[in-house]
Amino acid sequence: MSAPLLPELVEGALRQFFVSRAPVVDSVGGGYRDAVTALESFVLRGGKRVRPSFAWTGWVGAGGDPKGTDAGAVLRACSALELVQAGALIHDDIIDASTTRRGFETVHIDFARRHRGAGWHGRPEQFGEAVAILLGDLALVWADDMLRDSGLDAESLARVGPVWSAMRTEVLGGQYLDIAGEVSADESVEAATRVNRYKTAAYTIERPLHLGAVIAGADDALIDAYRRFGTDIGLAFQLRDDLLGVFGDPHVTGKPSGDDLRSGKRTVLFALALETADVNDPVAAEVLREAIGTDLTDEQVERLRMLLIELGAVEQVEQRIATLTERAFEALDGSTATEVGKAHLRASALAATLRTA
Amino acid sequence: MSAPLLPELVEGALRQFFVSRAPVVDSVGGGYRDAVTALESFVLRGGKRVRPSFAWTGWVGAGGDPKGTDAGAVLRACSALELVQAGALIHDDIIDASTTRRGFETVHIDFARRHRGAGWHGRPEQFGEAVAILLGDLALVWADDMLRDSGLDAESLARVGPVWSAMRTEVLGGQYLDIAGEVSADESVEAATRVNRYKTAAYTIERPLHLGAVIAGADDALIDAYRRFGTDIGLAFQLRDDLLGVFGDPHVTGKPSGDDLRSGKRTVLFALALETADVNDPVAAEVLREAIGTDLTDEQVERLRMLLIELGAVEQVEQRIATLTERAFEALDGSTATEVGKAHLRASALAATLRTA
Repeated sequence: MSAPLLPELVEGALRQFFVSRAPVVDSVGGGYRDAVTALESFVLRGGKRVRPSFAWTGWVGAGGDPKGTDAGAVLRACSALELVQAGALIHDDIIDASTTRRGFETVHIDFARRHRGAGWHGRPEQFGEAVAILLGDLALVWADDMLRDSGLDAESLARVGPVWSAMRTEVLGGQYLDIAGEVSADESVEAATRVNRYKTAAYTIERPLHLGAVIAGADDALIDAYRRFGTDIGLAFQLRDDLLGVFGDPHVTGKPSGDDLRSGKRTVLFALALETADVNDPVAAEVLREAIGTDLTDEQVERLRMLLIELGAVEQVEQRIATLTERAFEALDGSTATEVGKAHLRASALAATLRTA
Repeated sequence: MSAPLLPELVEGALRQFFVSRAPVVDSVGGGYRDAVTALESFVLRGGKRVRPSFAWTGWVGAGGDPKGTDAGAVLRACSALELVQAGALIHDDIIDASTTRRGFETVHIDFARRHRGAGWHGRPEQFGEAVAILLGDLALVWADDMLRDSGLDAESLARVGPVWSAMRTEVLGGQYLDIAGEVSADESVEAATRVNRYKTAAYTIERPLHLGAVIAGADDALIDAYRRFGTDIGLAFQLRDDLLGVFGDPHVTGKPSGDDLRSGKRTVLFALALETADVNDPVAAEVLREAIGTDLTDEQVERLRMLLIELGAVEQVEQRIATLTERAFEALDGSTATEVGKAHLRASALAATLRTA
């Protein structure tokens, strides 16, 4: 029998955390349990547990011992990142008016349907959104509880505090800039990169690694190397995502082909194409501006794809991914991370930047 | 020159906290600062600072020394409750589709107006709600940061953790039960009391007192007395609110007369009236059920007021307030709280339960 993989261990820790909340939930009573159960299903249903994995690997790479006595506490602290993520996703789905997530109804759609089914008063959509706002809040505050109750000693918790705090302030900033950039149609590469930096790179890789490092008591040099590695791989990861959002195989990505073009997402890919078109090909620039965020036919999507290639934007993005990855590996190689940590981080980095889904 | 009052000290602590967040907000850059400034204005603009006051008084009553070296840290920890409250209000205003708060536009209305003014893409309402969701989240996570960075020693923080955690899980539960009760038209006194217990009493008085007590290292007996006092005064406070929501003078309360009847709020007052009417006066019960939550004329509001009095519900609520207050004072009097703590708590309790606005 093989040892359980990290995602399974994270799920076990999350499951245990939900059990630990039962007394307070039951003391409130009424139908609170039903709402909490919906949150629990959302959290346990999946995802790749990317953030806990990077945090854990950061800890191991900084000398943490997976067989040591504090490994359980560290696992719980790392797993708390999944509750931050649950809160972010539930609220994001309201903001983006998304109807499905991981093949299931989003929380606000789920509760609107329950309202409709029960024939309750008021608008089902309003009820669904209200419950999703509250459950997202609950996930956010429970993330803190899970970290605080993880069993980490007071000194480790004190070191984690500022990292945890910065991460959450940054991701909310990244989300804000994302929606502000979308409504104001900010076309700059700089604005798109800023969103990638804070909404994705810092939140998904840099800060989780940083978190793992401070738990292990890493020195400033290793923390700095981790952060440079995490930022660059995080940015490369998002650039890969941008390419997949336009060129990805729907059978592999699970998203409709050209989804990002139809939704009007302000990606670096698109910004680079516009930048070149504005200089060299004003007609192409006009086509791009008129097409983005509209209900495109498959033929129009295909036409835009060719345009992004012809303008050199795809090549530029691939080049950026390569440069970022190279620079990240240099930072990692030159660091004092353990060999096993380096090996894991390299593998995770390649998985994140070379993926097809 | 007199010493600053507690609300002013709380505002000073909050102002200082916002200054401390500037580096991370500016590192994210873009327009994040604008959004954060809107949150800061919301937080600093007011309210009575009820929760920090109860927490502070709980600490003083448990032997905390307002002139001691840890008073600054305690003040900051107590003030963090205002950020929890800001998050709750901003999200509540979305849920209730409220347009004003403390005489100003609610956050979602404010940002919808900015969107409209700038002629941005998409629906202004959707943008306003999205920003308000994110700023409510930011207030919630900053509440944690402010507590963690308050300067309380690790042992005090460890004692505060479970109280802080329970308080937030309870208030979100109370909010959930409130909206679930409203859509399902739950008519029971029990359901309305449960909402009052968790949405108001625990969150506004019981847990803040508890928080202050554990910071001071109070023993179980004093904590128990505080909690009983806080629960009862909290319930009485909400019952007074129910009466003011129907009978309050609009010039004093600042809310339209009969507001709770028009909005369909499921109060204990209304539930008691229905309970009696169902037994003794089926016609009155029908009138109540048909009227609640509809766009009533002033004459209809006046008719319902008379009905609530005739059915004895007003008398019952006044009786409950008196009983709760009496029981709360007994718990307080029999406790080991300091005399100055008792005096302050008695005054606060009377202000909360005998008020006219």
